[in-house]
Amino acid sequence: MIEKKFRLGNLFDFYGELLTDKQQNILELYLLDDFSFGEISDNHSISRQAVYDTVKRSEKILEDYESKLGLMEKFHATESLIKDVSEKMDLLLTKIEDSKVSNDIADVINEVKSRLTSI
Amino acid sequence: MIEKKFRLGNLFDFYGELLTDKQQNILELYLLDDFSFGEISDNHSISRQAVYDTVKRSEKILEDYESKLGLMEKFHATESLIKDVSEKMDLLLTKIEDSKVSNDIADVINEVKSRLTSI
Repeated sequence: MIEKKFRLGNLFDFYGELLTDKQQNILELYLLDDFSFGEISDNHSISRQAVYDTVKRSEKILEDYESKLGLMEKFHATESLIKDVSEKMDLLLTKIEDSKVSNDIADVINEVKSRLTSI
Repeated sequence: MIEKKFRLGNLFDFYGELLTDKQQNILELYLLDDFSFGEISDNHSISRQAVYDTVKRSEKILEDYESKLGLMEKFHATESLIKDVSEKMDLLLTKIEDSKVSNDIADVINEVKSRLTSI
């Protein structure tokens, strides 16, 4: 359940702008403000069923975008790449420190690390 | 003009799956097979004007997706990052060769380079 909500949050981050304003508003309350369907219903004068339907319908639309475009999966692969490369840079720095090589090598590695965090 | 077509090609790569089959078919003929509007018209029994309108309408739809999502721009930034980091790895290899440090440092760098090309 938590995993499903987490995935919906990721999908919303990616494709949320393609939903209607109403769908976006309800998903923001549900995902970002962490209100329950009942609380959203109480505070925004819509039935709990309408909240539920909007979330489910939005989820289907967002999943459909991801199944057509696959851009979220691609981005997660990039994130994983950046994490891997960053860890390798740390490993290099340790090895280079041990080898007592010149500072300019460490400088290049630090440049790479800083470039990786810029994305 | 060429730049505009190039951008449309990039947009089509990213968001093309969100167009209708008919729009996708015409854009494939125009962008991938490099047919002119007139040639597409002659070979597919539709007016030149209809081809033109479909391309322009599709372009607008694709630009609209990019203006809402900005994922193409984000991906180009990642491509640029990968190119930069890859160049830095080459630089490191040269510096390390000059310093005659142990091979395991070069091994890590080569691993990073191979990881960068996997994306």
